[in-house]
Amino acid sequence: MKVDIIIHNGHLMTMEGKGVGYIADGAVAIKHNKIEAVGQTQEILREYTAERHIDAANKLIMPGFIDAHIHTGIAIFRGVAQDMSNWMQKGLWPFQKHLRPDESAIGSMVNIIEGIKAGTTTFCDYDGRMDLIVNNYKKIGARARVAELVNEIPDNIGDLPVGELYTFESSIGETKLNRNLELYEKHHDTEDGRITVILGPHGPDMMSLELLKEVKNHAEKLDTKLHMHVAQGDREINQMEKRYGKRSIEFLDEHDFLNERLIAVHLTEATDEETAFIAKSGASMIYCAGSIGIIDGMVPPVQHFLDAGGTACLGSDQAPGNNSNNMLNEMKFAAILNKVKYKNPQAFHATQALRMATIEAAKVMGIDHEAGSLRSGKKADIILVDLTAPAFYPVLTKPIRNIVPNLVYSARGDEVDTAIIDGKVIMENKQILTIHEKEEISKAQQTAENIASRAEEDILKADSDILQMVRDGLL
Amino acid sequence: MKVDIIIHNGHLMTMEGKGVGYIADGAVAIKHNKIEAVGQTQEILREYTAERHIDAANKLIMPGFIDAHIHTGIAIFRGVAQDMSNWMQKGLWPFQKHLRPDESAIGSMVNIIEGIKAGTTTFCDYDGRMDLIVNNYKKIGARARVAELVNEIPDNIGDLPVGELYTFESSIGETKLNRNLELYEKHHDTEDGRITVILGPHGPDMMSLELLKEVKNHAEKLDTKLHMHVAQGDREINQMEKRYGKRSIEFLDEHDFLNERLIAVHLTEATDEETAFIAKSGASMIYCAGSIGIIDGMVPPVQHFLDAGGTACLGSDQAPGNNSNNMLNEMKFAAILNKVKYKNPQAFHATQALRMATIEAAKVMGIDHEAGSLRSGKKADIILVDLTAPAFYPVLTKPIRNIVPNLVYSARGDEVDTAIIDGKVIMENKQILTIHEKEEISKAQQTAENIASRAEEDILKADSDILQMVRDGLL
Repeated sequence: MKVDIIIHNGHLMTMEGKGVGYIADGAVAIKHNKIEAVGQTQEILREYTAERHIDAANKLIMPGFIDAHIHTGIAIFRGVAQDMSNWMQKGLWPFQKHLRPDESAIGSMVNIIEGIKAGTTTFCDYDGRMDLIVNNYKKIGARARVAELVNEIPDNIGDLPVGELYTFESSIGETKLNRNLELYEKHHDTEDGRITVILGPHGPDMMSLELLKEVKNHAEKLDTKLHMHVAQGDREINQMEKRYGKRSIEFLDEHDFLNERLIAVHLTEATDEETAFIAKSGASMIYCAGSIGIIDGMVPPVQHFLDAGGTACLGSDQAPGNNSNNMLNEMKFAAILNKVKYKNPQAFHATQALRMATIEAAKVMGIDHEAGSLRSGKKADIILVDLTAPAFYPVLTKPIRNIVPNLVYSARGDEVDTAIIDGKVIMENKQILTIHEKEEISKAQQTAENIASRAEEDILKADSDILQMVRDGLL
Repeated sequence: MKVDIIIHNGHLMTMEGKGVGYIADGAVAIKHNKIEAVGQTQEILREYTAERHIDAANKLIMPGFIDAHIHTGIAIFRGVAQDMSNWMQKGLWPFQKHLRPDESAIGSMVNIIEGIKAGTTTFCDYDGRMDLIVNNYKKIGARARVAELVNEIPDNIGDLPVGELYTFESSIGETKLNRNLELYEKHHDTEDGRITVILGPHGPDMMSLELLKEVKNHAEKLDTKLHMHVAQGDREINQMEKRYGKRSIEFLDEHDFLNERLIAVHLTEATDEETAFIAKSGASMIYCAGSIGIIDGMVPPVQHFLDAGGTACLGSDQAPGNNSNNMLNEMKFAAILNKVKYKNPQAFHATQALRMATIEAAKVMGIDHEAGSLRSGKKADIILVDLTAPAFYPVLTKPIRNIVPNLVYSARGDEVDTAIIDGKVIMENKQILTIHEKEEISKAQQTAENIASRAEEDILKADSDILQMVRDGLL
């Protein structure tokens, strides 16, 4: 049978089954945008011929990473909100209030470039003005499962004193919900299914119960998931207790949000009891190890969630305070932070981290029928990783295999040399083929400088810890 | 005045003073192996002409990293000893007992390549058969401050049941001490001072008190430092209590080891009281965030050591269980693990991590007169980092500067494009000029496979957690 691409002769990890599905001399046959077959090189070459052969000798063939939670619209503020108190109000907000939607989308593109160059092929982007950002995914050719950030909070929210109850404006809520619905209408299941849309309520504290219920009704009608921050910080719990006299998870349970439809992000402040409760409800969890570690100094209860039978995965969150959107960083952080949390080197092993960046992420996002592992019939989202890079040295396969731990604990990102998304070669020899990287970055750099210049007065007024560090010569 | 190299037009961080010594449009003039001048581009170009100009536009100019604690001799076993119990006996040992010194040196070279390609210019290598390994540093052109691992433990140590008291063989101790002294004799202050030698007692539990005192006497005579594991794990404390009825730090104090000469590595098991005590003694500390996090699930008391007035820095330790030797990883891990330990996002900020990989490391190792910062008269160990890489996007300088946090939390290693060591350009456009990278890696890969083949029976016999994971398809 004739296919479009055969990748052969590589160390193959399908991520099927309970482990990594290792095949020593593996090959994948790709036809149009799907995987036609996966197996040993000899088998595949016997059954198929191809337009194009890719020799993966000394390379790892595996599914691309799924970044389950990323806000690319604020990548333009990378590195302005870490090592500080009140990172959102004093770090991010003085910049963000000056951000125009078109500028947000320009910055987003660099974030997507960053992700692809470190092996991410699916981006679950969750941000404002996704109607603009989604075009980046169309242009660059990445898989995206996007949601509009729906809340009903006025634009001056960051100016509110810390701890004060947010005011809601229902007109804002309707506008944002309509944007999410229009996004669905216009972009869901476009580009041969490469772009899909779900709903993105910002958090139980960020909108009225009425709007929250309205979003939920729409999700049920469209039969789609709800991507939502839940118990994401003491700020949220504080708002919920002030407004409703109860904590987020009890509140969401009361209003029938806890089920398979809900993707609960962070759960930073969930107690062990709440964590087990939500895990058992069928809702899934996204753990953002780097961002919550850096901006909050915390390790959310992801292991507890898994132990209670829940499905969980990893996300890179936001560049202002993470400060990177590289799933290799997330896997490293997730593993080491949980080993330390449990004082146990066997906790959160490399394979667990790797599954949570691939197949488990696909399950959480509701796309495991088409992504997250390599299997006949799934979409062809595949990366090749150069195993001759020093970070992987040496590659041992017998009797111990060490590729997975070195991928998780040692690889940096630049070892990824090829990315195939939806059957198309998007990156080759570490260069993205669909856009001009340097031009995109240069345009975005100029844009960021423009915003910083407009924001200068507000940044000075915020008088953040970082500003003080700059003044002290520490930065 | 005529110099050899002028690097100009870059974002410059000297690492002088209390912070990072940022100069917006900075330049460095290099003559022979030393820094002639550091300043603004305009100034430097007015005062100096050069054989060679390096344009650092959109690049960061900074001192190369100092990896204060690395065992390159076991890099050949990267990735065989993580996510498990008894990592040393069951993970590393079944391999290590089959390692020949020449093979260890072959693997070491890849480790050094890995380090240089992530910005390390000085390696404080601490391993057996440094007489062979040191030649790698001579060949590749890196700065090295090496020590032979001195102990008096028989080669079958890894076969001992866990918890049993080590037997000492004085002939082994004498052989290893002599190797360290011969190393000093033959290599100290060679290559224009690029190679220096200190003494490397393995740990207070790994040798008799007599040998420990002998090493100390030699260190005093040579007026050099003692690079030693101290309180590195419950194994050590257990040995010390069984043998001497006291813990490591009390024991070392009793025998006058706690002073400026001592570089205490790990201190994993040191109590807060012991930590403050050793910090106040003038001894310094090396913190290996990645390796201790991964193999022990612990965060050593480095912040407590600093708070007590001690000088401390970072090291990447060993590839079998870290699994990388990349100072960017170490900075990331050090910062996030301590933020989480103290539940405080302001703890262990990026600049602290960066200083501990540069100037503070130079102080710990006793080389701050020549390395760790950019200042007229110091050796020219300089790296250039590409700030147009997505990990650094955007570069902001006014009113907030975000280069340092993005270097620490976001950069991967491959952004380092140039390394100058001792005034010579060792790496350019990410390619090392002094050796053939691919050949070295390919030779080392073959060597690792040979060892794994010889070791197969012992690996199977050890029946480690990792072997079980391989059998279960998890690796």
